[in-house]
Amino acid sequence: MGSLESPRTAHGWAAHDGSGILSPYEFPLREVDPDSVEIKVLYCGICHTDLHQLKNDYGMSRYPMVAGHEVVGTVTKVGAGVERFKVGDCVGVGCIVGSCQDCNACTGDMEQYCSKKRWTYNDVFPDGEPTQGGFADLMVVDQRFVVTIPEGLSLDAAAPLLCAGITVYSPMKHFGMTEPGKKCGILGLGGVGHMGVKFAKAFGLHVTVISTSRSKEKEAREVLGADDFLVSTDPEQMAAAAQSLDYILDTIPAPHPLDMYLPLLGMNGKFILLGVVPAPLQFVAPNILLGRRMIAGSFVGSMKETQEMLEFSAEKKIECMIETVTFDYINEAMKRLEKNDVRYRFVIDVEKSNKSA
Amino acid sequence: MGSLESPRTAHGWAAHDGSGILSPYEFPLREVDPDSVEIKVLYCGICHTDLHQLKNDYGMSRYPMVAGHEVVGTVTKVGAGVERFKVGDCVGVGCIVGSCQDCNACTGDMEQYCSKKRWTYNDVFPDGEPTQGGFADLMVVDQRFVVTIPEGLSLDAAAPLLCAGITVYSPMKHFGMTEPGKKCGILGLGGVGHMGVKFAKAFGLHVTVISTSRSKEKEAREVLGADDFLVSTDPEQMAAAAQSLDYILDTIPAPHPLDMYLPLLGMNGKFILLGVVPAPLQFVAPNILLGRRMIAGSFVGSMKETQEMLEFSAEKKIECMIETVTFDYINEAMKRLEKNDVRYRFVIDVEKSNKSA
Repeated sequence: MGSLESPRTAHGWAAHDGSGILSPYEFPLREVDPDSVEIKVLYCGICHTDLHQLKNDYGMSRYPMVAGHEVVGTVTKVGAGVERFKVGDCVGVGCIVGSCQDCNACTGDMEQYCSKKRWTYNDVFPDGEPTQGGFADLMVVDQRFVVTIPEGLSLDAAAPLLCAGITVYSPMKHFGMTEPGKKCGILGLGGVGHMGVKFAKAFGLHVTVISTSRSKEKEAREVLGADDFLVSTDPEQMAAAAQSLDYILDTIPAPHPLDMYLPLLGMNGKFILLGVVPAPLQFVAPNILLGRRMIAGSFVGSMKETQEMLEFSAEKKIECMIETVTFDYINEAMKRLEKNDVRYRFVIDVEKSNKSA
Repeated sequence: MGSLESPRTAHGWAAHDGSGILSPYEFPLREVDPDSVEIKVLYCGICHTDLHQLKNDYGMSRYPMVAGHEVVGTVTKVGAGVERFKVGDCVGVGCIVGSCQDCNACTGDMEQYCSKKRWTYNDVFPDGEPTQGGFADLMVVDQRFVVTIPEGLSLDAAAPLLCAGITVYSPMKHFGMTEPGKKCGILGLGGVGHMGVKFAKAFGLHVTVISTSRSKEKEAREVLGADDFLVSTDPEQMAAAAQSLDYILDTIPAPHPLDMYLPLLGMNGKFILLGVVPAPLQFVAPNILLGRRMIAGSFVGSMKETQEMLEFSAEKKIECMIETVTFDYINEAMKRLEKNDVRYRFVIDVEKSNKSA
């Protein structure tokens, strides 16, 4: 079964321990099996989860770790059984690159909830080799976990759609948050939150950005198109807004009190948690009992939904607001991301990085 | 507008302070206005919430307090505008006796979620007089908050349906927990929990009782008809049952860890919280994100649903398992309830209490 090709090498940037500091790293590229495609990475977004993983905040990091799960690139090679893609296609890869293909989640187009899903990085292939993400020049990915980037999207600004975009799109579709005129709160205005504003507006919702400080109000209203802005540290404003929202998308990736926000929801209101918060969350029972509110979780979306979201984005001209960087800036970018000092997503220009290296 | 009748008096049992100790108490009975009915109380269930209210566990108790919100009685007088009831009718009263009649909740047959709802006791009427519950011989109640007890139900065993019964029936209907063969866990086997088993079985669900000890297994299976029993303190059993349930009805009225139970739910699993737990509840985000689970709250049910539930109960022969007591035993009953030493609901035989007094 061996390959006649000589082993090939990918060039990326990896963290080697919980310091999370990234440095150049060469690793063997996987063979292109019949179901896989080889992708030359053009752009890769930096998600807040990358920061947690690189620094071992969840206590389950494997090193060396090549992070990155918001990948846009071009197909450079296809396996013998691949019919959906050809060399030169512009494609995307998100948070997962494998699943069992057999469970209810997988057969029901919800493979993101398969308990045997394979993470794009910080995981292992069946042969025991580590998965490595998009902070690298090349990736080999099972075609089932590759989507087509439709024409009309900027490739750099499309990259974060593969995680930040689908993370808000999927729950909005699943939980019926698409009824025009309904009122949606967006908690946290970072990479995921600002995509929340854009998709909510595209679905015709009335959007209220909820933030700890007024500093983001002008931008939220004028640039992102939010209809309203609520300062969560102003008790009078919060009290006046009680029961005024139908949904809240909670995109805050750090610990925060739910009881401050749940009373904003009206009857049957839905509070959708999207961030993998690395500490327990807390609420009092009456805040969900009286009003029949729900707190639900959602994790990215299926491959089918991701393709649908990309097409919706191309049609509605939805792109991420990004700051493009090269690898030589990545450690600085990580520091700034930790302080939320980015408007709203860093995207690594991988091709340019490699040319300038 | 004054009445020509001389003021009349109700005889009940009230707590006078946070000790929660009840003693005989006389209070003026409200006038029967055109929209009200006077009810001679026959039976009144004792709910765990009564215990919390009588002892001021929520910090908002008013004394003297005549508790009781699971009332069955006969109509003894009707107001001039009442057409739905006549003297002699057998009726029930639950947790609320008023609402604004104007908001979305009220006009949408969900008046239990009206923010101006009036509690059956420990609340005030518009004239400033206190509401008083069913631990008394007589009540005067707005006809909109009175239901008909259908023929075929035992009056004493029907009383707890007005709170414990509707508390499980309403979320099962609202959240679609009625699909035969789906798997439902019942957390806590008290007054509400054992009704959960009965309604879940009536809807054709596969029912698993989840309890801290094996002591209730025989009863759960043989008397209540549960299909399965899970000991929550047995880590191996809990691990083996991971992702096996579609729904969990959480009826525990005391603080408890949600993270122990959430992993039992499969994809899109619903965890429905029913108890007014007097302390914050806690969970970690991945337990709802990975699996798109939800934690929802539900509070009793509407008057329309309550009537529907009573008719369903009569048809399916669903009654509460009760221990009937008289007022002279009520303080002892409260002590036993605090220790969950009741199978499964105390019901006060009010008429017998008064005859023997």
